[in-house]
Amino acid sequence: MAESNTTRLRVFSLNCWGIRYLSKHCRQRYAMIGELLSREEHDIVLLQEVWSEKDFLCLKRKLSSTHPHSHYFKSGVIGSGMATFSRHRIHDAFLYRYSLNGYPYMAHHGDWFGGKAVGMVILNIGRLAAHVYVTHLHAEYCREKDSYLPHRVVQAWELQQFLRHTSSGADLVILAGDLNLHPQDLGNRLLRTYTGLRDSYTETAKFDGCEDGITLIADNPFINPKELCPFEKGIRIDYILYKGSGRVSIQCESLSTTKGSVPDHPFPYSDHEALSAELQLQTLTQQPGGDETRGKLAELVDIVTEARTEVKVGLYCAEKMRYTAARTGVMGLALLLLELAIAAVPWLALGTDQPFPRATFYLLGVLCFAILITTFLLYIFYTMEVKALQGAEDQMRLAVGSLQERLRGFPLAQPLNPLCRPPDGQDPCPLEPEE
Amino acid sequence: MAESNTTRLRVFSLNCWGIRYLSKHCRQRYAMIGELLSREEHDIVLLQEVWSEKDFLCLKRKLSSTHPHSHYFKSGVIGSGMATFSRHRIHDAFLYRYSLNGYPYMAHHGDWFGGKAVGMVILNIGRLAAHVYVTHLHAEYCREKDSYLPHRVVQAWELQQFLRHTSSGADLVILAGDLNLHPQDLGNRLLRTYTGLRDSYTETAKFDGCEDGITLIADNPFINPKELCPFEKGIRIDYILYKGSGRVSIQCESLSTTKGSVPDHPFPYSDHEALSAELQLQTLTQQPGGDETRGKLAELVDIVTEARTEVKVGLYCAEKMRYTAARTGVMGLALLLLELAIAAVPWLALGTDQPFPRATFYLLGVLCFAILITTFLLYIFYTMEVKALQGAEDQMRLAVGSLQERLRGFPLAQPLNPLCRPPDGQDPCPLEPEE
Repeated sequence: MAESNTTRLRVFSLNCWGIRYLSKHCRQRYAMIGELLSREEHDIVLLQEVWSEKDFLCLKRKLSSTHPHSHYFKSGVIGSGMATFSRHRIHDAFLYRYSLNGYPYMAHHGDWFGGKAVGMVILNIGRLAAHVYVTHLHAEYCREKDSYLPHRVVQAWELQQFLRHTSSGADLVILAGDLNLHPQDLGNRLLRTYTGLRDSYTETAKFDGCEDGITLIADNPFINPKELCPFEKGIRIDYILYKGSGRVSIQCESLSTTKGSVPDHPFPYSDHEALSAELQLQTLTQQPGGDETRGKLAELVDIVTEARTEVKVGLYCAEKMRYTAARTGVMGLALLLLELAIAAVPWLALGTDQPFPRATFYLLGVLCFAILITTFLLYIFYTMEVKALQGAEDQMRLAVGSLQERLRGFPLAQPLNPLCRPPDGQDPCPLEPEE
Repeated sequence: MAESNTTRLRVFSLNCWGIRYLSKHCRQRYAMIGELLSREEHDIVLLQEVWSEKDFLCLKRKLSSTHPHSHYFKSGVIGSGMATFSRHRIHDAFLYRYSLNGYPYMAHHGDWFGGKAVGMVILNIGRLAAHVYVTHLHAEYCREKDSYLPHRVVQAWELQQFLRHTSSGADLVILAGDLNLHPQDLGNRLLRTYTGLRDSYTETAKFDGCEDGITLIADNPFINPKELCPFEKGIRIDYILYKGSGRVSIQCESLSTTKGSVPDHPFPYSDHEALSAELQLQTLTQQPGGDETRGKLAELVDIVTEARTEVKVGLYCAEKMRYTAARTGVMGLALLLLELAIAAVPWLALGTDQPFPRATFYLLGVLCFAILITTFLLYIFYTMEVKALQGAEDQMRLAVGSLQERLRGFPLAQPLNPLCRPPDGQDPCPLEPEE
């Protein structure tokens, strides 16, 4: 890449749907993805659902000459599924595991086992420090009755926190991945408004892809169109987001997505469409002022308040489930004690026959034990869920308080992003108790 | 606090040993701690092992006039146990849960249930943005044969990562807590060398406390001196660390610790000693250059390599344990199938008597099921441990590679901290494959 005032950066993102032996044509699709990547030579490649490390290593070998730098993020039981390849040297990698990610007993949904997280790599593009993030949020299985909504909101909350706090030294920030959020979903608004990230689809000068930028499309042969209902054509849940800094301004020159089929191949790369963005970086000599307004700040207060309500709903459900687990556990214990009491009768009154058929007796004992163990594990799990939700809610309350404080003393043209600095350089309210 | 070029900041840290109904004189000790804090009016109070939220709320009420701002960090089953009180407004809070934290079946050690983490709050001290961290690492139960060492090393690794990546916008950084690390332990060196944090005990101009700054002392009536063996007098594992920035220089004016007893009270505040540091902040008009040398960089390479070795040892053990769990599970399954085969004999050959006594038959069945469930859960758990250790090892490999790269092209007086910027402003090695 030429070292000049203007630099082009090509970013690629794809959810690979790479479940060995389960995803259709998995090996062939990885071969196709490898070919595409080595041909296109994007600067940064961000992949999701690369569930098997063997597949990652296979891609790594294939891309060793075009993308000499790579990182595979590991977490959870199966892994995070996230991988990154880069033409530029990766200096540092860091992973943040979301505190909530579905339920282990919902094994058919499988999200819990995936250990969802956000991964960050730091790389240098010329003189610029780029903080590049890849993530994959919890899937939405039923839009009407989405029991995972609080989990996804907390994930979006933690994503924006992680991104905001780890990117202050960055010249440019890129986030790509399968957010499992529609463009106007709460989590998406929370993420974009808080971080100031811009959506390459809405910002691009030139777009080539499916209508409305959808990335999960009904025309894809791996998709069951019924699952997309009520969105007949498809939904947009995969993104490439970006922002510059005082040192760099970024424009999205073009964005393209695949359209459900690949020329000369019988099937597409994945059940998701691939995104490819071309960004233009321009090094600035002067640091621009903050472009945040009072309106933006007020909008942020509303969004965080909405998120807090959603988390409270989740908290109510989690507490109810925990209570149910505890009550069922107590019933199991009572049943076990009752059985032991009945069993003790012949021992105490010698000569009396055991009133219970033996088989039933043992079966009931096993059942009681199973109930006790299951409810104990569920109780532990729900307690962790409650703590995580409470933690997120506490942080949101703090954020709303701080934002409102800033809003009250907001001068015109005050930059929003460094929340840590008060508007007038003084502790705004050193002695007022918080909520 | 007067707004001047020089500002004093008083920081307090204590592991409160606050396990309700289990820790001795818990309520009375909290009352004593509350009195101390409202009397002393430290700027920032960082507490660990406040296991019950009720105790936190009780302290919060008591300190509402002296410390109007507070945050309680929630995670894990019981909680993280960490709380912070501040005289200055808290603008933001963020929690990072360590990926490894002991084993759930080691319930008598209890660390797993505690959900160990590092908490960050951002507050303003005058015009300065302070990033304040509190943490509590996994305990060391046996120094000679410390099976938790890899977990603690990974925690120290993640702590330095979190701190380094989230503090680039900070004017000053403070970290306090019970690190469960001796001053020269690997995790401690890793943390201090990577982040540049300074130890208030070694840096202070004036010290008042126990010999060698020990914070877990044999004279404390809640301590069993045998547990400190071979360190007769005690050990130093609680710290207040700090660093400034280009905008602020920090000096530690004085550090004091309690000495195992409290005047007019029959027992001390906790089984740990409390630390109280007085820091002097001086706002700088010029940004000083980096004070890192080639020697520092080489030292860091050695320390990360040592940490990587330790993590590999842990990985080997975790893989062995996972293999054992799998093998035991397979044996349980084989036993169950064998039992079912024996039970099937009378069904297949009608008229033959059941060769097994029924009670033994059912008991064996229950045993097989218990083995299967236990080994399944252990297998899942060890897999998560393996993934987390592998993840940390990968990141360490990346870090060593990047550090060595910098070391090769290291010019004199090059600042170390912004690892993200290459020494010559160019991608140092854009096409060389990594290890």
